[in-house]
Amino acid sequence: MKHDFSCRNKTRNVYILSFHCATKKRGKFEEMAMAFSALLKRTSVINSAIGGFQASRAFASVAVGSDLISAASDVSLQRARSWDEGVSSKFATTPLTDIFKGKKVVIFGLPGAYTGVCSAQHVPSYNRNIDSFKMKGIDSVICVAVNDPYTINAWAEKLQAKEAIEFYGDFDGSFHKKLDLMIDLSAALLGPRSHRWSAYVDDGKIKALNIEKAPSEFDVSSGDVILQQI
Amino acid sequence: MKHDFSCRNKTRNVYILSFHCATKKRGKFEEMAMAFSALLKRTSVINSAIGGFQASRAFASVAVGSDLISAASDVSLQRARSWDEGVSSKFATTPLTDIFKGKKVVIFGLPGAYTGVCSAQHVPSYNRNIDSFKMKGIDSVICVAVNDPYTINAWAEKLQAKEAIEFYGDFDGSFHKKLDLMIDLSAALLGPRSHRWSAYVDDGKIKALNIEKAPSEFDVSSGDVILQQI
Repeated sequence: MKHDFSCRNKTRNVYILSFHCATKKRGKFEEMAMAFSALLKRTSVINSAIGGFQASRAFASVAVGSDLISAASDVSLQRARSWDEGVSSKFATTPLTDIFKGKKVVIFGLPGAYTGVCSAQHVPSYNRNIDSFKMKGIDSVICVAVNDPYTINAWAEKLQAKEAIEFYGDFDGSFHKKLDLMIDLSAALLGPRSHRWSAYVDDGKIKALNIEKAPSEFDVSSGDVILQQI
Repeated sequence: MKHDFSCRNKTRNVYILSFHCATKKRGKFEEMAMAFSALLKRTSVINSAIGGFQASRAFASVAVGSDLISAASDVSLQRARSWDEGVSSKFATTPLTDIFKGKKVVIFGLPGAYTGVCSAQHVPSYNRNIDSFKMKGIDSVICVAVNDPYTINAWAEKLQAKEAIEFYGDFDGSFHKKLDLMIDLSAALLGPRSHRWSAYVDDGKIKALNIEKAPSEFDVSSGDVILQQI
């Protein structure tokens, strides 16, 4: 398995655009990705987790056609907010029904706030396409990560992405566990987090689903790719 | 058990100073603390955790006189850094020996980056006293939390506290577990985190240890209090 940022496979042309924003830093990204990948490769725990992930994809709890609301019916996400807003909201959470029922939603998940690919490429690829998503009738573009809602809120503000994208925390990973999208990233000092993925969901039904082979990759889960799938 | 921000007990006078920085917002803090406390009280999981915490204090794995290095000899912390720096460092961690051996250290722990009391009062109470700590011969003032090192790094930068204070992540809680200082804060959408605490540690030996009765309290763990204990 390769872990790098090279533009390859059938999405190559789409990714020329996706990587354009990072052109100046591309050498650095490649270096980072290679270092991260080397670490992933040499860490048996992670290797085993990735192996498990690859094997389990065929048996993932969700796929194109699945009903996301039914798949995780008892799960709620936590809308990004400041701590003050958290207290004011009495730490309220949002059931999946409220997020998906009767709506056309693009959702993407990533390993964590304040990590490299997530900040520099993944979120920006949705943020810059927000008008195109709206023109295609998408009601909401959602970013979710295994973070608390205060951390992901601060990160969203730093990325200046909160206006276009709805950010949600999945602080205990219960959403991603239901979707079989968790991975142990302790080797990168992150602990249990989610894979990098995206989905187009219409009234709870998954119409398109893209999961990177490894969290360090950015081949299939960008905003540019899913825009073509709607 | 009371959970509020009122200045009380023997540390009252010290806390007049500690709360001064938050005077304008004090009504809001009290309101927030009461809401948080009410939530803590009505959540059986948390109540049970707090109950367990109170009962276990008498049997804490560390106390004044304990050797922190021996108590958690196999534990490392993760120095706060950006993701890029994390990759460059090959995700290196710092053994407790490197942090405490032969040094006079003031360390404080808190429930999480981007939460209320931590941002507005706890960190500032150490940040503004940094010169006094140095005058008393303290080699390093350390903040630790159950966060990944990238999140705590971004938070430290936002608080403009990174120059004075060394920030460390305890991403998997292994340090706080060894010290019996973990608490389930899922009711506040945080998951397993640490209690709010502080310690003065000389060559690994704990000389002073202050643990708040509940994470929403800020009675005994401030920089002003421990400054008097050195």
